[in-house]
Amino acid sequence: MIIVKLGGSLITDKSKAFVIRGGVLRRLSGEIKRGAGKDLIIIHGGGSFGHPIANKYMLQRGFQSKEQLRGVYLTRLYMDILNRKVLEALTNKSVPAISIQSSANIICDNGRINEFNIEIVDGFIKLGLVPVMYGDVVLDKSRGFCILSGDQIVSHLAMEFDVDRVILATDVDGVYTKDPKKFEEAKFIKEISKDNTQILDKLEISENDVTGGLKGKIIELLKLAEKGTESIIINGLVKGRLEKAILGERVLGTKVF
Amino acid sequence: MIIVKLGGSLITDKSKAFVIRGGVLRRLSGEIKRGAGKDLIIIHGGGSFGHPIANKYMLQRGFQSKEQLRGVYLTRLYMDILNRKVLEALTNKSVPAISIQSSANIICDNGRINEFNIEIVDGFIKLGLVPVMYGDVVLDKSRGFCILSGDQIVSHLAMEFDVDRVILATDVDGVYTKDPKKFEEAKFIKEISKDNTQILDKLEISENDVTGGLKGKIIELLKLAEKGTESIIINGLVKGRLEKAILGERVLGTKVF
Repeated sequence: MIIVKLGGSLITDKSKAFVIRGGVLRRLSGEIKRGAGKDLIIIHGGGSFGHPIANKYMLQRGFQSKEQLRGVYLTRLYMDILNRKVLEALTNKSVPAISIQSSANIICDNGRINEFNIEIVDGFIKLGLVPVMYGDVVLDKSRGFCILSGDQIVSHLAMEFDVDRVILATDVDGVYTKDPKKFEEAKFIKEISKDNTQILDKLEISENDVTGGLKGKIIELLKLAEKGTESIIINGLVKGRLEKAILGERVLGTKVF
Repeated sequence: MIIVKLGGSLITDKSKAFVIRGGVLRRLSGEIKRGAGKDLIIIHGGGSFGHPIANKYMLQRGFQSKEQLRGVYLTRLYMDILNRKVLEALTNKSVPAISIQSSANIICDNGRINEFNIEIVDGFIKLGLVPVMYGDVVLDKSRGFCILSGDQIVSHLAMEFDVDRVILATDVDGVYTKDPKKFEEAKFIKEISKDNTQILDKLEISENDVTGGLKGKIIELLKLAEKGTESIIINGLVKGRLEKAILGERVLGTKVF
């Protein structure tokens, strides 16, 4: 089985609220269709559909006042709108994709997944369908609600299922020492091994992302490495790279193992 | 708590595939907003978004061939599209509505609900939100998948929660002995009591509906009557009737008790 994560910054335009990158999404859907001959789970992030409202209502703090509830239901609505666009793109390319709404299935505790009805994910895979899940606002036993990142879902599913490969498609070539869009001296990191994690200390990353940013992503992937599951962070904006990664071909990216 | 079911034939135009009754939906959302001062759960049917594909691929028979899978994922996609329209209408009127995708939460066995994570419905209500669920294609332990009617969800939730009143908003005034749109001699039935169910034998109803039609609806409601929960089937096309029914005022309709 392969788990593919389509990053929020890849499938949406993060500079504008509620704008999808339709062309990118259509191309990636085609690559998924051509690349996939085996069991597949797709997870996508929220990008400019999830983050603006979540930030405005400070949903990452959990329940603090009734005023946040409008933020909860609007974030949920916009995540469903984004998810529907992803589903339309995938099914238009005949990927037998089926949405599984995270918030209807998962309950967190202190921001971490506490209950997850994996049986439903497994059941749809066994029928021959491709489950699609996404970062979402979900119930939280301690905080009322919390923001569950797509990355945490990826890591949880990769622990539960027998997964060959995790592919994180983003809008950059992989992990750099600094933000490559802002700093010319940013150095590309080809590999991050569970036996050599001090490289994490070298990362200078702004962590203003409600879901924990890049460092959070790598920490989730290192947990999988402990279990023996390899991950690769690749640039989904480069044509064909996701398809090759799904097929197991060598592509530019940061390997976490 | 009150459970409101918005029938598929009320919120969609059943004569055309994938056409919503936008004006009706907007008005009903306003009535729900004005009527609701207490805990509320909303369930909606599929109407012309769920039934055409489900019929074409004979989904009501459960898994019989791989060809049906396209019907499964398309029905799911269109139900999500309809649900999103319902959510947009409700949240536009500031109803704090939150979608709970039935297929991500429920597993059936032989067409009946077998697992249902009520904790998620309850959790959102306790936060102060209004859960919205809907008829859907869901996993089925014996049949692979099945069509779960909104009516069965209504009846299950009314059994689990402490419910004051179940309101089924449809496109007719209530139950008639025959289809009132086709037969002039159709007689209106004001009441159906659990102690006098032979009235069911008098109903001449065409049962071509994938979710079991009107008789199925009444059978679900009679189970609630056994528990002491009263239901009323009303005409949601008549302005103000849903609002009054939510407020507990007397309205024209068929009472099942």
